[in-house]
Amino acid sequence: MSTAVSPLAPKSLPTLPPVRGVRLATAEAGIRYKGRTDVLLAAFDEGTTVAGVFTKSRCPSAPVEWCRERLSGGSIRALVVNSGNANAFTGKNGRASTKLTAETTAKAAGCSEGEIFLSSTGVIGEPLDATKFSGVMDGLVANGSEDAWEAAARAIMTTDTFPKLATRTAEIGGVTVTLNGIAKGAGMIAPDMATMLSYVATDAAIAAPALQAALSDAVERSFNCVTIDGDTSTSDTLMAFATGKAGNATVTDAADPAFAAFRSALEDLLIELAQLVARDGEGARKFVTVEVAGAESDLSARRIAMSIANSPLVKTAVAGEDANWGRVVAAVGKAGEPADRDLLTISFGDIRVAHQGERDPAYDEAVTSAYMKNEEITIAVDIGLGSGKARVWTCDLTEGYIQINADYRS
Amino acid sequence: MSTAVSPLAPKSLPTLPPVRGVRLATAEAGIRYKGRTDVLLAAFDEGTTVAGVFTKSRCPSAPVEWCRERLSGGSIRALVVNSGNANAFTGKNGRASTKLTAETTAKAAGCSEGEIFLSSTGVIGEPLDATKFSGVMDGLVANGSEDAWEAAARAIMTTDTFPKLATRTAEIGGVTVTLNGIAKGAGMIAPDMATMLSYVATDAAIAAPALQAALSDAVERSFNCVTIDGDTSTSDTLMAFATGKAGNATVTDAADPAFAAFRSALEDLLIELAQLVARDGEGARKFVTVEVAGAESDLSARRIAMSIANSPLVKTAVAGEDANWGRVVAAVGKAGEPADRDLLTISFGDIRVAHQGERDPAYDEAVTSAYMKNEEITIAVDIGLGSGKARVWTCDLTEGYIQINADYRS
Repeated sequence: MSTAVSPLAPKSLPTLPPVRGVRLATAEAGIRYKGRTDVLLAAFDEGTTVAGVFTKSRCPSAPVEWCRERLSGGSIRALVVNSGNANAFTGKNGRASTKLTAETTAKAAGCSEGEIFLSSTGVIGEPLDATKFSGVMDGLVANGSEDAWEAAARAIMTTDTFPKLATRTAEIGGVTVTLNGIAKGAGMIAPDMATMLSYVATDAAIAAPALQAALSDAVERSFNCVTIDGDTSTSDTLMAFATGKAGNATVTDAADPAFAAFRSALEDLLIELAQLVARDGEGARKFVTVEVAGAESDLSARRIAMSIANSPLVKTAVAGEDANWGRVVAAVGKAGEPADRDLLTISFGDIRVAHQGERDPAYDEAVTSAYMKNEEITIAVDIGLGSGKARVWTCDLTEGYIQINADYRS
Repeated sequence: MSTAVSPLAPKSLPTLPPVRGVRLATAEAGIRYKGRTDVLLAAFDEGTTVAGVFTKSRCPSAPVEWCRERLSGGSIRALVVNSGNANAFTGKNGRASTKLTAETTAKAAGCSEGEIFLSSTGVIGEPLDATKFSGVMDGLVANGSEDAWEAAARAIMTTDTFPKLATRTAEIGGVTVTLNGIAKGAGMIAPDMATMLSYVATDAAIAAPALQAALSDAVERSFNCVTIDGDTSTSDTLMAFATGKAGNATVTDAADPAFAAFRSALEDLLIELAQLVARDGEGARKFVTVEVAGAESDLSARRIAMSIANSPLVKTAVAGEDANWGRVVAAVGKAGEPADRDLLTISFGDIRVAHQGERDPAYDEAVTSAYMKNEEITIAVDIGLGSGKARVWTCDLTEGYIQINADYRS
């Protein structure tokens, strides 16, 4: 398996400021990897609210079930994330491991199990030996730091080739608040190796229902618009935590105008993290934006965009630097959404390659081929029927994807 | 691009007997390929009935539209298939090319345009120069042979690495009839290169509506159960022709008990052809059967089976000879169909690897790994909820698929 950093990685990592009320610590629990951290503890001050969005898989992991059951409590004191083992499809053992991890954490952190949230990512179907956390938990609680964001992002990586971090600020009622986020990919939303996990912490004071509404809304235009291979993990998790230390008047209504700037910053942060996931797609060499306009509705546009972004033939064409818009037409056609071949317009970047159901009369192979050599490619489709639009992100499909995924478990 | 024959190809090609009333001829029209045949003419005696099933793409090719419009006529005198250019997404030019090809053929064959059916496969979006057919059409009509089935199967190939042929016999009211079929793949149902085309001819006497009913039914358990990459072509076409020369009493009702043996033979023939398509999937090194039982309905089982068969992560695991049943669980989970993780049973071949939501206690990595080295792999899933079942076929996903598809058009 290649360990080279993705060519699409950002040139430098951002330095994340502290978020008051959040302390981070990492350790080597030896779950699967040797010589690297594989467990993250995020400890939160009392009064921290929590929101979450989880995989739609009908076969979710034990930690996902654990989190879902505790989300209605609305408060969190500790998050434990381990990499190396997903604790998914592990039956009763999986539930026991989850319970044991929560007990160990609650005891060390001095809080109730109901305020512990858990994530696991890594191999599926292998029993997770949760006793390995016991030896490191006291140290994790004792060593929490406000400045360990990069270490946190590194501890949750599986096949990621670079850590994913982003930060924003926003104002709520004249008070500046901070939002920090971390994420891991990498074969987006793929099972035993490529679960998508992301966590956002803010010092803003936001009641849990308002935080949940803001998160659920923003995910639609960020993480739900990125795909690597169309596979959905049993463990996908996005959570947000609000410590309330910034001193703003607590937001209780997601529709409060004073909350708008925060919501915008949250969406922007999640888009950056989602794009980082696509930039680290397994084997990715090109970052692809698919824009669909003129569909009958936004939902229809999104389905068409996803059909294009998930098409192996479109993705291999991009890998081959081939402006193969015929495959884009085919992907539109198979989406099952209203579309009329003779109204389609397709562009690669600013170059219109097809119009009204046939190749653009001005089509120039040399110009288009030169565009396809770029590291960032935009495929734009106008359906010509309505005003629905969508934008999704993906990467190309290369031999590297096959190598990584044919080799992973063995 | 590799030109080696798929390792999953049959050891020898069957010799197809004549089908009375069908004459075949091939030629080099020079559409795209050099030094090989690229056009097939099948001429049928008067009185031949026709049925067809076509792509569900919302953006079908011009020849597909042509055929659909003429299917209600119920009779055929000539079929023209060219490889090298799909005449898809070619707008008005595409319709003009189709019309010109039909005119040329009708004139040479001495029949009406309404009895001409057309297919094109190859690059999408490039204008098809139909005048190239003019120079070869008289020769095609003059040189028709009852014994040119293999040549016919070769002329319609694009990236196929071997020709696909199958034959059956059946009795209708005591009269033995013959069914011959040819097909081409290869990246199943993928656009500009991998359109699936298949044609079946029989000397049985069958009215067009009964032939259509039999074909539409059989396709559900044959071609609609094979997938290479989940991509759907703009040109997929399956047609059946019945010349009536065998002398049986004409079948007018698909439910006629005398028709049952024919229908069974037809389904069997189509399954063989569909499996040949999967065996020639682009880059395929392993032939995979996915069997789902215990689903809430047959339709639900089919959707789950297709979710498994289309999962890039399952397919790369098979390529890597890795019994990664965790990815199978994930594929079940993402299908969106009723499933309960803790009721799932998963087997590779006869080896039960997972049971009741966790790894089988008797799981033996060495035994399972040895099984995965086979050229033919069966993945069986019991959902444990009902009696719905389905069986689909696919192949593994290898670096060869990427190489072929990243290189094809350029």
